[in-house]
Amino acid sequence: MNVDYRNIKVIGFDADDTLWVNETYFRDAEQEFAQLLSQFETANKIDQELFKMEMKNLPIYGYGVKGFVLSMVEIALELSNYTVSSKTIEKILDIGKDMINKPVEILEDVEDTLKSLSKEYKLILATKGDLLDQERKLEKSGLIDYFHHIEVLSEKEATNYSKLLGHLDIKPSEFLMVGNSLKSDILPLVAIGAKAIHVPFHTTWQHERVSKKEADDADYVTVKSIGEIPKLLSS
Amino acid sequence: MNVDYRNIKVIGFDADDTLWVNETYFRDAEQEFAQLLSQFETANKIDQELFKMEMKNLPIYGYGVKGFVLSMVEIALELSNYTVSSKTIEKILDIGKDMINKPVEILEDVEDTLKSLSKEYKLILATKGDLLDQERKLEKSGLIDYFHHIEVLSEKEATNYSKLLGHLDIKPSEFLMVGNSLKSDILPLVAIGAKAIHVPFHTTWQHERVSKKEADDADYVTVKSIGEIPKLLSS
Repeated sequence: MNVDYRNIKVIGFDADDTLWVNETYFRDAEQEFAQLLSQFETANKIDQELFKMEMKNLPIYGYGVKGFVLSMVEIALELSNYTVSSKTIEKILDIGKDMINKPVEILEDVEDTLKSLSKEYKLILATKGDLLDQERKLEKSGLIDYFHHIEVLSEKEATNYSKLLGHLDIKPSEFLMVGNSLKSDILPLVAIGAKAIHVPFHTTWQHERVSKKEADDADYVTVKSIGEIPKLLSS
Repeated sequence: MNVDYRNIKVIGFDADDTLWVNETYFRDAEQEFAQLLSQFETANKIDQELFKMEMKNLPIYGYGVKGFVLSMVEIALELSNYTVSSKTIEKILDIGKDMINKPVEILEDVEDTLKSLSKEYKLILATKGDLLDQERKLEKSGLIDYFHHIEVLSEKEATNYSKLLGHLDIKPSEFLMVGNSLKSDILPLVAIGAKAIHVPFHTTWQHERVSKKEADDADYVTVKSIGEIPKLLSS
């Protein structure tokens, strides 16, 4: 597919699982959580119930570690029929704190790619995580100087991206989004006439999955590595 | 004091306790929390310990209701010597959910002021709360159309405001901030050469208080009501 990238002025990068590892830490946390509650339920059941609780709470808590921890506490109360110990609740809080304090593991080729692209484009970080969390990761990553600023979106839907473009004062055709989630970083951009490049990560959160049909109908490019992007844009 | 507001292009409004009631709900929540734990400690001690826990957790959780709830859970475990019941933990989670779902109580003269100012200036909402929370409140408030966009700051310190001005692509002298917190909405702006108007709210969170000396040395205007601002700017 030949896409015309010549009008691009601003490139938005998703952060978690596009620039650095994130989903892996959530999967590890879920395992640890299931272990803590193993006297009450099977790991599989705990996983399912936690996910349901996260979805139920998403409209009020939004994304990020804090809402995840609050959902873990809530489902621990329910699944244990209110017999879970205070020490277990404390361990759940600790899982969250450990996640927040994790070192940042930058993905391959990210730094070179940002260095190269930042010479020609305004780069922004576009994330639906928690601002403080993402600022901290950006700081720890050493990548902060490549970015003009961080944009936090409460949801990554077409309307949120339209608002973002209004705020950046650019046309959809001047914006390129790069990310690992078809649902959040690719399809909504295609829908509003912006460009999008998909860089898959090996693990995708259940909530971020889309049907093959939805993905097949959309007009975007997939690359194996983020390192292919500079060449793609200059060709 | 005669301040020259003629260069102002963008006005930033703090949200909580400037446009709508917020601190009052935190005070109510603290009372309810102290009531829940009254078998373990005096209300006064619970208040103090909760505040200490919030300050300890602030670097990892940041501002907003979710971090507040996580701190309540943590201090409940400690103060009860790990004997607090699961039902009480659930009630603490409910306090947080109730706070998030509270209706928005707009303060006096806010709507008329925004309506008037939005004709001449670009208005933005500049908050250090949770983005989802603030978007929800802005939506409920019916004030959303007066604002160009929401800026979330992880802290409201001089460096964060400087970044914001870079992002808005304006000079400090072209920015006016309006808010109820001397520490967050006024002093850092004065420090970077921007303008600031203080609109006091009757309740100020302990963490937001500043010494009289700090406040006296700074160059800003205080108004009794937000409704005085349009006249002040046009004089």
